[in-house]
Amino acid sequence: MADTALDALIEALRRLPGVGQKSAQRVAFHLLQHDRDGARRLAHALDVAAERVHHCARCHTFTEDEVCPVCRDPERDARLLCVVETPADQHALERSGGYRGLYFVLMGRLSPLDGIGAGDIGAAELIERASDGTVQEVILATSFTAEGEVTAHALAQALRSRGLKVTRLARGVPAGSEIEYVDLGTIAHALVDRR
Amino acid sequence: MADTALDALIEALRRLPGVGQKSAQRVAFHLLQHDRDGARRLAHALDVAAERVHHCARCHTFTEDEVCPVCRDPERDARLLCVVETPADQHALERSGGYRGLYFVLMGRLSPLDGIGAGDIGAAELIERASDGTVQEVILATSFTAEGEVTAHALAQALRSRGLKVTRLARGVPAGSEIEYVDLGTIAHALVDRR
Ligand SMILES: [Zn+2]
Ligand SMILES: [Zn+2]
Repeated sequence: MADTALDALIEALRRLPGVGQKSAQRVAFHLLQHDRDGARRLAHALDVAAERVHHCARCHTFTEDEVCPVCRDPERDARLLCVVETPADQHALERSGGYRGLYFVLMGRLSPLDGIGAGDIGAAELIERASDGTVQEVILATSFTAEGEVTAHALAQALRSRGLKVTRLARGVPAGSEIEYVDLGTIAHALVDRR
Repeated sequence: MADTALDALIEALRRLPGVGQKSAQRVAFHLLQHDRDGARRLAHALDVAAERVHHCARCHTFTEDEVCPVCRDPERDARLLCVVETPADQHALERSGGYRGLYFVLMGRLSPLDGIGAGDIGAAELIERASDGTVQEVILATSFTAEGEVTAHALAQALRSRGLKVTRLARGVPAGSEIEYVDLGTIAHALVDRR
């Protein structure tokens, strides 16, 4: 298949999510023509990350430590456990400045059609984590998409059956939005969740 | 900036053309969660390509040899020299099966607004290459875009002033197209270039 170093590079790039033949070629040509330092730096970053990054023993997020800095932070309110799908979602919550509890990162969401079940999102580990006697509320911050809602629903059932308090992020109108331009489903949810 | 191996990986991915923060995150998470072998394979391919791939001394395409296999092929018609913008364009011409001459790969096209001038596309090397006494016709196969046309025009002038025969790929209706759905500019060109 890969006759040359260039072909091998294009093939390796094509395996990345969202990268087709054309963009793999474009990236390979760009790196070889204009940014060989960038190519070497990316190679190094890939090797280092593949070697060192693993999952936090408490929250499952990516970390180079046994337990990640957030889980180790004594300033965090250990009574609150927020469940998110990805580290990116966790970062968004952190940047909002509105949350000082701990996290559990599912590293995915339930997707029966793609064969992603409860085991793939660490549901059992979440339930064990939430049952440590300190957690008093589990906040489900999965996406407001069909799969995110299914995930939240399934986790809520399992957690409540263990007697845990479970909440969900409020649905509603985004900050800064003019009502006129907000989609109707969002307005309907904002009405239901009004406070 | 890059506190962790994961941050460093996301930053290195963001430097790739067409990759923003969101897709850099998505790619990094995917590799770490589902495809560490792919990450290591890509790292290796990047290192090997950055180390071994350089430009063919005759046609400027990417190769690991001093002179690329196409330029070395004695079956090729050395009287024809086809000028293309990228190795991908060259591959497309090869796959068409309609050309058995040699190539010169510009590795770009003139773009005064982006500061890409004649020196960046190897115009002087092309003229020297085309003046070897064997080349009898230079076929300009740059894109039929504004920049591709400007490039073809400038190269044609320079090559013709050295007494070389210069041609351009025909513009026209793509094979398999129903005339009804072809854009009007293409139809106008196909009328002008009718044969
Ligand atoms: Zn953690
Ligand atoms: Zn060559």
